[in-house]
Amino acid sequence: MRVQSPFRTQKDSVAEKSGPVTAAIIMAPAKKNILERLDAGEVVIGDGGFVFALEKRGYVKAGPWTPEAAAEHPEAVRQLHREFLRAGSNVMQTFTFYASDDKLENRGNTQRFTGQQINEAACDLAREVANEGDALVAGGVSQTPSYLSCKSEDDVKAIFKKQIDVFVQKNVDFLIAEYFEHVEEAEWAVQVLKTTGKPVAASLCIGPEGDLNGVSPGDCAVRLVKAGAQIVGINCHFDPETCVKTVKMMKEGVEKAGLKAHYMTQPLAYHTPDCNRQGFIDLPEFPFSLEPRILSRWDMQKYAREAYNAGIRFIGGCCGFEPYHIRALAEELASERGFLPAGSEKHGTWGSGLEMHTKPWVRARARRDYWEKLNPASGRPYCPSMSIPDGWGVTKGHADLMQQKEATSKDQLKVLFEKASQGQ
Amino acid sequence: MRVQSPFRTQKDSVAEKSGPVTAAIIMAPAKKNILERLDAGEVVIGDGGFVFALEKRGYVKAGPWTPEAAAEHPEAVRQLHREFLRAGSNVMQTFTFYASDDKLENRGNTQRFTGQQINEAACDLAREVANEGDALVAGGVSQTPSYLSCKSEDDVKAIFKKQIDVFVQKNVDFLIAEYFEHVEEAEWAVQVLKTTGKPVAASLCIGPEGDLNGVSPGDCAVRLVKAGAQIVGINCHFDPETCVKTVKMMKEGVEKAGLKAHYMTQPLAYHTPDCNRQGFIDLPEFPFSLEPRILSRWDMQKYAREAYNAGIRFIGGCCGFEPYHIRALAEELASERGFLPAGSEKHGTWGSGLEMHTKPWVRARARRDYWEKLNPASGRPYCPSMSIPDGWGVTKGHADLMQQKEATSKDQLKVLFEKASQGQ
Amino acid sequence: MRVQSPFRTQKDSVAEKSGPVTAAIIMAPAKKNILERLDAGEVVIGDGGFVFALEKRGYVKAGPWTPEAAAEHPEAVRQLHREFLRAGSNVMQTFTFYASDDKLENRGNTQRFTGQQINEAACDLAREVANEGDALVAGGVSQTPSYLSCKSEDDVKAIFKKQIDVFVQKNVDFLIAEYFEHVEEAEWAVQVLKTTGKPVAASLCIGPEGDLNGVSPGDCAVRLVKAGAQIVGINCHFDPETCVKTVKMMKEGVEKAGLKAHYMTQPLAYHTPDCNRQGFIDLPEFPFSLEPRILSRWDMQKYAREAYNAGIRFIGGCCGFEPYHIRALAEELASERGFLPAGSEKHGTWGSGLEMHTKPWVRARARRDYWEKLNPASGRPYCPSMSIPDGWGVTKGHADLMQQKEATSKDQLKVLFEKASQGQ
Amino acid sequence: MRVQSPFRTQKDSVAEKSGPVTAAIIMAPAKKNILERLDAGEVVIGDGGFVFALEKRGYVKAGPWTPEAAAEHPEAVRQLHREFLRAGSNVMQTFTFYASDDKLENRGNTQRFTGQQINEAACDLAREVANEGDALVAGGVSQTPSYLSCKSEDDVKAIFKKQIDVFVQKNVDFLIAEYFEHVEEAEWAVQVLKTTGKPVAASLCIGPEGDLNGVSPGDCAVRLVKAGAQIVGINCHFDPETCVKTVKMMKEGVEKAGLKAHYMTQPLAYHTPDCNRQGFIDLPEFPFSLEPRILSRWDMQKYAREAYNAGIRFIGGCCGFEPYHIRALAEELASERGFLPAGSEKHGTWGSGLEMHTKPWVRARARRDYWEKLNPASGRPYCPSMSIPDGWGVTKGHADLMQQKEATSKDQLKVLFEKASQGQ
Repeated sequence: MRVQSPFRTQKDSVAEKSGPVTAAIIMAPAKKNILERLDAGEVVIGDGGFVFALEKRGYVKAGPWTPEAAAEHPEAVRQLHREFLRAGSNVMQTFTFYASDDKLENRGNTQRFTGQQINEAACDLAREVANEGDALVAGGVSQTPSYLSCKSEDDVKAIFKKQIDVFVQKNVDFLIAEYFEHVEEAEWAVQVLKTTGKPVAASLCIGPEGDLNGVSPGDCAVRLVKAGAQIVGINCHFDPETCVKTVKMMKEGVEKAGLKAHYMTQPLAYHTPDCNRQGFIDLPEFPFSLEPRILSRWDMQKYAREAYNAGIRFIGGCCGFEPYHIRALAEELASERGFLPAGSEKHGTWGSGLEMHTKPWVRARARRDYWEKLNPASGRPYCPSMSIPDGWGVTKGHADLMQQKEATSKDQLKVLFEKASQGQ
Repeated sequence: MRVQSPFRTQKDSVAEKSGPVTAAIIMAPAKKNILERLDAGEVVIGDGGFVFALEKRGYVKAGPWTPEAAAEHPEAVRQLHREFLRAGSNVMQTFTFYASDDKLENRGNTQRFTGQQINEAACDLAREVANEGDALVAGGVSQTPSYLSCKSEDDVKAIFKKQIDVFVQKNVDFLIAEYFEHVEEAEWAVQVLKTTGKPVAASLCIGPEGDLNGVSPGDCAVRLVKAGAQIVGINCHFDPETCVKTVKMMKEGVEKAGLKAHYMTQPLAYHTPDCNRQGFIDLPEFPFSLEPRILSRWDMQKYAREAYNAGIRFIGGCCGFEPYHIRALAEELASERGFLPAGSEKHGTWGSGLEMHTKPWVRARARRDYWEKLNPASGRPYCPSMSIPDGWGVTKGHADLMQQKEATSKDQLKVLFEKASQGQ
Repeated sequence: MRVQSPFRTQKDSVAEKSGPVTAAIIMAPAKKNILERLDAGEVVIGDGGFVFALEKRGYVKAGPWTPEAAAEHPEAVRQLHREFLRAGSNVMQTFTFYASDDKLENRGNTQRFTGQQINEAACDLAREVANEGDALVAGGVSQTPSYLSCKSEDDVKAIFKKQIDVFVQKNVDFLIAEYFEHVEEAEWAVQVLKTTGKPVAASLCIGPEGDLNGVSPGDCAVRLVKAGAQIVGINCHFDPETCVKTVKMMKEGVEKAGLKAHYMTQPLAYHTPDCNRQGFIDLPEFPFSLEPRILSRWDMQKYAREAYNAGIRFIGGCCGFEPYHIRALAEELASERGFLPAGSEKHGTWGSGLEMHTKPWVRARARRDYWEKLNPASGRPYCPSMSIPDGWGVTKGHADLMQQKEATSKDQLKVLFEKASQGQ
Repeated sequence: MRVQSPFRTQKDSVAEKSGPVTAAIIMAPAKKNILERLDAGEVVIGDGGFVFALEKRGYVKAGPWTPEAAAEHPEAVRQLHREFLRAGSNVMQTFTFYASDDKLENRGNTQRFTGQQINEAACDLAREVANEGDALVAGGVSQTPSYLSCKSEDDVKAIFKKQIDVFVQKNVDFLIAEYFEHVEEAEWAVQVLKTTGKPVAASLCIGPEGDLNGVSPGDCAVRLVKAGAQIVGINCHFDPETCVKTVKMMKEGVEKAGLKAHYMTQPLAYHTPDCNRQGFIDLPEFPFSLEPRILSRWDMQKYAREAYNAGIRFIGGCCGFEPYHIRALAEELASERGFLPAGSEKHGTWGSGLEMHTKPWVRARARRDYWEKLNPASGRPYCPSMSIPDGWGVTKGHADLMQQKEATSKDQLKVLFEKASQGQ
């Protein structure tokens, strides 16, 4: 299998030496756009979630989850983009999750950088690395505190509009409205994104039970397609198995309605068999003790195959994905795509690199059969395999969800603690 | 608590713009050396293991485990150094694991880069980032295929000598002989390292049962101190709990012998309650399905406290450690050290950042009591909590361990597979 | 709380001394029949499954599962009846499971005893012990090999008729058609049972997915009520949680159809969260490694409460139940029933007997809060928490299910083993 | 393999009809005594623990754990003896555990029956059933509250003497001092037992860490042999694996001291890998949530083999054992003993009875390979595999252990609860 010539420009020489991206690189020959690829039946590999990966690397704060690192620590963001590109990603999503002004203000992150600065920096970084390979830049918007706090449709749309103005100015290749728990807000986002004339993908963070108002996956998908999305699907909140299942329900809904769409999944890299409708947020382990749930590369290959078999062609990841997880997707679908990702030069299919291990009994693990059948131990004999999720059962409009800028006060925390104790 | 002013020079402005490190930065004011720090009772935070972290990022091949990325993908290695520095590391270990010529040749990694080139590049990267903060550079050597294949003491020492010549030329701050399964080879390494006049640390990858020849941890430690090591301890192969326990046995041995030393631990970031003497190599999950065993940040805080209480003052990590694991060590010991690491600007002690989460019930998790008591679920109801390790029971000199340059042949693999089947 | 005066006649004096039951005892004053009790809103506590309990005691052979012990080892069967009575059972089911002639012949168990002898002995034993307390005798029939082998309705009904002739002659108090995987066969059984004029209960061994032909629990229940059953419900094959859930679906179906019935559950005493439609038969642990799944007495109290809350009033057990499990049901519902069972003289609610334990820290466990919240460990760190069931997906009429008298031949076993290997 | 002709007298005819045992039966031909059997190298199969088995059947109260059922419900005790005999037991232990007067008074159980009555009834029942087959009667004494409360050696010995007087009068075949946590008390018991002239076995409830005063298993065994015990070993408190390991240590100690003895194990039927020195009493699941830890019959066969290989020839069980567990021991050692137990008529080796199961895929489980390799699931995905034991670390003489007659008061319970909370 041919290994993809990884980079159009030699990053070691150019990027290392000159730092900021040069005009010459931006002029790289035109690539097929996202819809041309999907229409042609190509597999498009997405990237992984930046907030979780950069939290582990020390550049994102869990809780606010805002992306100021795009402006504050660009070298860290650029490096992560490069690793996903090298792993096989065809899409560089701008690191603009929760970069709407209402969220940034809410979370106290506009002191050093304005929302516009963060969005611009994120676009530049994504473009710089996309140009180093065969990747497109996708500008992303996500759900807003304004919607949860019951602001008007106009107010919420104005929030999206501000981010999109930057994406248009920076000429991203297409747009993604992702991480929406309420299909209504996602529809509003799609409507705003459509005004740009660029291809639009829409991705909800829901499971088989539907959105937080109980709209089924099938109905959600139909509404998003009618709102103008050409690609619909699921990201975040659930494990790959659940997300693929949910996208299948979306596909059935769309087809039953006589409509057409492309499909995407960008699930968690965490096993979540015990989740309820709210997804992994409600797991007691969220967000700081999720380690034992992390998927292995072999789990990822299984996911890639199942997604492919379900007719999904935009296959990526979200929170918990590391570059090697994306590489596993690209390796599983190498024969369908016709090539291996650049990063496979440092990997062998099904552990074949182990044939060069020092210990002969480790060399004996260099085979598909071994890794596919292995049920890995947790190393945690005092821990269970499933958790009982919190279940507060509130959604948009509930007083508990009115967003506040301040950290939780001691009194608030006390009330919450009591509610939580009763819940368990 | 004061957050450490992270960097002596502003990396965003200087490093980003100019790429390679300038002379001015190298001239940074002299730091206290490793022994001065330990003699003064300071806590020295180590870094994490590079081969596993960079394997996940796509730059190291599992199996050979060689560090050619230092020369091949310097931007990736530099970024990892920076993340550990930011997380609180006081030691930048040169990425020279398995960078001895016999290993590199053995594993087919000398086509593009010579051993000398790799060792030199690794020294430059470690120095560049060490100079950005309060960190020292440690040149590292590790066990050799030559020893396993029963080469003579002179031959093995010549191998170490070649690497050390580079370390002397690049003027590293101190030296570490690490990852030795046989104390005899570690003694040889220490003897060579001592010729440089630099401080020497020696770290074995053994557990409470002792080295692969059955020499007890206490006896191992005594031999290493007598060979000239000023710091002795354990790295890799076992989880923090086991490593701290083993270092305690070393300390008892040294004290019983009327000797003096400083102590270090750099354990795995994987729970390994089920390991036998060979450590995690023999776990069926090694190296590609270890995910469910990854320690959380709270597990790491517990480790830091236990290591500190055991009198260990050089506390770091090995395979599996990500920057946030090192940050957890630095946060746990912040009051002892007098400051928080730079990376804590993006973290709050015991999850306090969650006070700004969108969902109130997640905000209720922002407290020590919650995370300390949580027994995280694996999300894998079809998997056990412990595994039965392979146990081939062979060691240095056994025919199975004669190193070969070629990948395992199909015939060899068949024999191994049969042996493995019988073993289980 | 009053402890029920356990026995009408002092078993220690009478039963011990005289062995066979005397006429005087049979003439005990008339009890309320099953429908009078249920119509009055009383809770009727069933007994547990005899084949599994007596297999552990050495009197039933797993595989054939036939009840020849009623004639062969009457003292063992009598003792088990007494233990259930003492635990609070109001129903002594005749130990006539699989005692149809076609099954007995099929399984080679008619050498020493005829079907009639077994059925008669079982009736006598149940009556003897029922008369020692406030219990009724229920004659039971269950699914037949004849149905699975596609015999005609007339043939199958003739099989039931033969058993029922004994029940009528022995004047049992009511009849139960239980353990049917196909509602059609259960309907036939009910039709035959109705000819006796006695109250009839009908209980399927299905889960929420319905019978093996896919008939939903609601539809099954409607058909059974229309066939003449006054009590409908579920027994065997699934854990209490699943059985209660399925009976709820039956109840909804019956109410939706404008019909009326009483409801019963007699679930397994094994946790089966991982079962598919076929129930615990398909679990790899069936029948010889089910131990780790056994419910505790506290699990049983939870079941009793849930069944009661679901409107179920005939609450008992099946395979895996030991007398203490039945006692737990009776203790949980003691306030609803107005008394504790006789066996509670040797028990205290929620572990209160531990207040007299030797060790004070064990005494501290004598409280409801302790036992309700405890998540008991399996003591099996090398075992998972869930299994992947076999799933052969065949049902009545499939060639694999044609019943044979002979044990599986080596050749047949080889074919099965290969199929099983592929399935996993 | 010949199935043992189970019973010398047909229990169905004689025992059923006549109740109390007749003189004719008592006159059965003399059997080889326990030492003759062991000296001849025979395997002696013990029985299982009566308090746990009868607690589940409703005749023993957990907490007091006293054996008044011998007098109060003889039919239940007789039946359990018979089941163990049928399963292959060669030893009928009198059901006299905790039947010393100080214990009975302490636990409020002398209202209906005196200690003497209980001990006499227990002897009669054991003798009656022993005479039905090839079994011996062993009179048993166990540790006393008097010792824990620091009574004098004379006082404690007087307690034993009272029980033994009954055993002598009833002419039991040999004596067992069992369930001692302190070797000193066991020595005293052995000294009293030796005065009878009967063979004496002594069995401690300790693990590899030794008795509660820290005396090693090897030293304990030497002291017991020197006190006059001809058989030494371990019963209760730990799982078979741990007990066999501990007896091995005893054997090494005895042999090193140049002494001779026979060895016995009667372990729990619960997996206890997580126990500390105090054994299963300190597990949070003790005594009411131990179900998931119950050993399967295949676990038992493994135990029988390991015990045999360790040179142990008196192999039985304690708490948690049901008759089928004892049968598994007898089946595993059938070729060594030359016959199968009577109960095997209702069992097939390695599940061979399943060859006659209705479903062909269950028939495919009728083979040793299947059951030996199966790792049974717990069916409890919310539960861990190991627990953290309570560890109060007190022993004989501690104020917490002064025995009291009254149930724990509310105030005492509150103190205990607080201590327990802090401990976890």
